[in-house]
Amino acid sequence: MTIIITAFERSPDGGQGLARDTRVRWALEEVGQPYEVRLVSFRAMKEPAHLALHPFGQIPTYEEGDLTLFETGAIVLHIAERHAGLLPDDANARSRAITWMFAAVNTVEPPILELTTARLLEGDKPWSKERLPLIQNRIRDRFKQLSNRLGDDDWLDGAFSAGDLMMVSVLLRSRSSGILDEYPNLAAYVARGEARPAYKRAFDAQLAVNAGKPPAG
Amino acid sequence: MTIIITAFERSPDGGQGLARDTRVRWALEEVGQPYEVRLVSFRAMKEPAHLALHPFGQIPTYEEGDLTLFETGAIVLHIAERHAGLLPDDANARSRAITWMFAAVNTVEPPILELTTARLLEGDKPWSKERLPLIQNRIRDRFKQLSNRLGDDDWLDGAFSAGDLMMVSVLLRSRSSGILDEYPNLAAYVARGEARPAYKRAFDAQLAVNAGKPPAG
Repeated sequence: MTIIITAFERSPDGGQGLARDTRVRWALEEVGQPYEVRLVSFRAMKEPAHLALHPFGQIPTYEEGDLTLFETGAIVLHIAERHAGLLPDDANARSRAITWMFAAVNTVEPPILELTTARLLEGDKPWSKERLPLIQNRIRDRFKQLSNRLGDDDWLDGAFSAGDLMMVSVLLRSRSSGILDEYPNLAAYVARGEARPAYKRAFDAQLAVNAGKPPAG
Repeated sequence: MTIIITAFERSPDGGQGLARDTRVRWALEEVGQPYEVRLVSFRAMKEPAHLALHPFGQIPTYEEGDLTLFETGAIVLHIAERHAGLLPDDANARSRAITWMFAAVNTVEPPILELTTARLLEGDKPWSKERLPLIQNRIRDRFKQLSNRLGDDDWLDGAFSAGDLMMVSVLLRSRSSGILDEYPNLAAYVARGEARPAYKRAFDAQLAVNAGKPPAG
């Protein structure tokens, strides 16, 4: 069955690969599954046809025959469960890899998103300058803990897994803040992720859509 | 094998059931698995012995023989995959239920946590009064979308699942803000969750630990 995902017609990041479709593209490239992409405008994302696929009006979505999914974490896990390459065979190791997927989106990503929100939605507020360092320190608290756990390892728990795919993708979103580079082992971890051929193919595919297009909005 | 989870020695909510161990207790009660609880103080959560179980120094953790997990979503999914009662048998319906688990922690919970953070960590800041309504409106945006999707249904996708368990638990955290009651179908959805015998047992178990103890910190 053909896999169809949705992506921004014009990504707010102008092709830096930070939109969430890149995570799904990366997973599909890791397991060697072809896919098609339907591009969606900001306006269309809030209309009934797209809301029927994604109740929160976002991208990506994932369609495969009768199945429609949203939420990047769930889509990546669905792909990882059906194709070899993103989850270990051992049942316990598998549960641990899934733990890192949830840690990426529920523990590490929230303060990173808070920084983005503070800049995009509250950047013109009088409190912005004083408040940003508070959020940056919350990111540092998480990064320090993650850095301690990673240590000198290549990946978070044995071989590369869907947990690393999600964590690298989340950490990438913080790179423009400069905080990632304060933790050399995390910066090297992200670089290892970006060096994977499957990541490069995913990145190039989203860039082909967004190259040369100025950030929207 | 005995299942051991960790929980706050003294929950910051004084026993309202909002600490994340309640989600794991609830899942274990739904599938009928006994468990033991090890209580952890705020100080002990940041010490090496606990950090070896949970790199971010939080509760709950989950131990079962050689396996150690953290991240509530991952723990609930682990339980749901190994015992009947929290995920549908049909493969596609199963992926959709997992989608709601991720939606709960990655899309609906972040603005709710942002409100908590704004109150706890920035409540004394000069911008607090002007900023809280901005966050409350971000919660409303999500609740409106979720309310539209739920409609008149009892649960998010067919029978009660781990996706509902996580979503109800996340929504409960917003009740003190009053925003939940602005969406009657969501308030009724949460009430249905709370009325489940398994939820009640989980709630009572955490209350037995925390009853009468003033909120810490």
